[in-house]
Amino acid sequence: MSLLTETVAAIAPASAEAMTAARQRQLTLTKPPGSLGALEDVGTRLCGMYGECPPPLPEPVAIAVFAADHGVCAQGVSLYPQEVTTQMVANILAGAAVVNAFGRQVGAAVTVIDVGVASEVVAAPGLTVRKVMAGTADMTQGPAMTPAQVQAAIEVGIEVATDLVAQGNRLLVVGDMGIANTTASAALISVFTGLDTADVTGRGTGIDNAMLKRKVSVIETAIRINAASPKDPIAALAGVGGLEHAAMVGYLLAAAALRTPVILDGVIACSAALVARAIAPRAADYWVAGHRSVEPGAAAALVHLDLVPLVDLGLRLGEGSGATLAVPFVQASARILREVATFDSAGVTNKQ
Amino acid sequence: MSLLTETVAAIAPASAEAMTAARQRQLTLTKPPGSLGALEDVGTRLCGMYGECPPPLPEPVAIAVFAADHGVCAQGVSLYPQEVTTQMVANILAGAAVVNAFGRQVGAAVTVIDVGVASEVVAAPGLTVRKVMAGTADMTQGPAMTPAQVQAAIEVGIEVATDLVAQGNRLLVVGDMGIANTTASAALISVFTGLDTADVTGRGTGIDNAMLKRKVSVIETAIRINAASPKDPIAALAGVGGLEHAAMVGYLLAAAALRTPVILDGVIACSAALVARAIAPRAADYWVAGHRSVEPGAAAALVHLDLVPLVDLGLRLGEGSGATLAVPFVQASARILREVATFDSAGVTNKQ
Repeated sequence: MSLLTETVAAIAPASAEAMTAARQRQLTLTKPPGSLGALEDVGTRLCGMYGECPPPLPEPVAIAVFAADHGVCAQGVSLYPQEVTTQMVANILAGAAVVNAFGRQVGAAVTVIDVGVASEVVAAPGLTVRKVMAGTADMTQGPAMTPAQVQAAIEVGIEVATDLVAQGNRLLVVGDMGIANTTASAALISVFTGLDTADVTGRGTGIDNAMLKRKVSVIETAIRINAASPKDPIAALAGVGGLEHAAMVGYLLAAAALRTPVILDGVIACSAALVARAIAPRAADYWVAGHRSVEPGAAAALVHLDLVPLVDLGLRLGEGSGATLAVPFVQASARILREVATFDSAGVTNKQ
Repeated sequence: MSLLTETVAAIAPASAEAMTAARQRQLTLTKPPGSLGALEDVGTRLCGMYGECPPPLPEPVAIAVFAADHGVCAQGVSLYPQEVTTQMVANILAGAAVVNAFGRQVGAAVTVIDVGVASEVVAAPGLTVRKVMAGTADMTQGPAMTPAQVQAAIEVGIEVATDLVAQGNRLLVVGDMGIANTTASAALISVFTGLDTADVTGRGTGIDNAMLKRKVSVIETAIRINAASPKDPIAALAGVGGLEHAAMVGYLLAAAALRTPVILDGVIACSAALVARAIAPRAADYWVAGHRSVEPGAAAALVHLDLVPLVDLGLRLGEGSGATLAVPFVQASARILREVATFDSAGVTNKQ
């Protein structure tokens, strides 16, 4: 049995009992019922994930940034050249990127996994080298990856999540770095939601209308040439996905198997989540939508995943930055159930 | 010269130079321009408030919860009896309310100021007793407060902010506790925005349609009887405000005079901010909108204050809970300018 098959087999649905207990507990706490809005739902879902009410405090937190390059970059879909992937990985490893600043804000460590950066990344603390190949092939000319490469990248993600949970982390964040990876993401989102490519393709780092038109056409070509279909998720991922997407699929499935919540970031993570859910529908019980990205594909994916984003600040950076900002919300939702007194225990009169 | 006059005279506008430097710096950091959305604006505004770019990290953080009772409670505008104010103050002092849980999440200490709770609050660490009167008078029968009482409550707020800043706090949060205080808030918002009372009055702790209709009528009566007008902010506050509103006005003005940012909470803080801005327009330079409350008056007030809320989770609790959840966003916005490398310093290629 492959590591992927084994992982999928280990995924149990969230605990309905713990969620029922959480919903009841929310009503006894010293606050008007429902007054904490979306945080009450998140807290209830955490109970389902961890299988207990109140839930543990979701800490420590680990941020995994999966980095890889994309052959489709040659089609002129991004403002930045491919070398920026390597340079930004170095920037993250130096602790000087946005995800590092936000990680420090929320007390979360950042790990970078080179699952397929085109050039060599200089070794540094925080870097895990699991390079499956030096960037994907150009998806407009054939599949981005072979079946063996997809499988290998998925296994990288499974192993990263397994290691992070084994190290004691109780909340995972998923981020990305890869020039042109919004192109692969939009392709996957179009395939898995059935929406028109033009409706789920965004400006990435900030391309203009002419480049956006070209990007849509490139994606349409890639989907057609690779006959990508939601009926065969692994083949679709091989056809129009990226190495970081494949690794994220493994990461998301393994976290679910280990009953550990994962906060999704923007369009890249959301597209990987669609693929992972197509492989194992119950895995989605363990995912929290971190933020509403400016990228149209992210919002479309979240609707299909039936997840409500927590942060809505007009972000479109990637790296896991938006998901990291949602960490305090997830932790606060657990604190509500853990720390707030009940009307009875506090001696507060409950309604007239 | 009164303490209020002195405070208003000390308010300087935010530094245009520091904000210009911040906008320029945002463009040099290793991220696509504008990709951090609303956080870029907050970071730029922080530079204006502190008068330097990059800004200091906004910590430590203090949460001041102003507590008071309302004579208008007798008109049946809330689901909860007046005694709940005292009980909830005790709950906060015991560290067991939502604002305490959220305060622990963001590393902020909670202080409760009894500026007018109807019954006696049992002394406890974290309580400051500055009771101006034992709850306001019923605003449907005449002014809620006398001019001297308003003045005294404003001075309480000025002194609380001054003390908290003197203790080293570099970011303030403003919260409230007071049964029926959404009624006074809606009255102030209607007066200072000119909007219909019905459009800015909400369900508070969760009243039904019949009670909501009654609440609107009570507010209309109070505004009419007291001839509350935005032309005389102090008189309007005396007529239809609350002691915690008056204290918040002082707190917001003093923070501005001390160039210290304040995160506004929901409808109570937003209504006080409208009054404070009517007294000293430039004070608004120092306020950050914490969250978009479910209460319709809060959103209306924020539009008039020209502030964009950072958290949007469907909250309607009060206590400063929504504002407290915004603390990590405000701090993260400063970290962007302080900690993220520039394209030049990181050796990252900036666009093709």
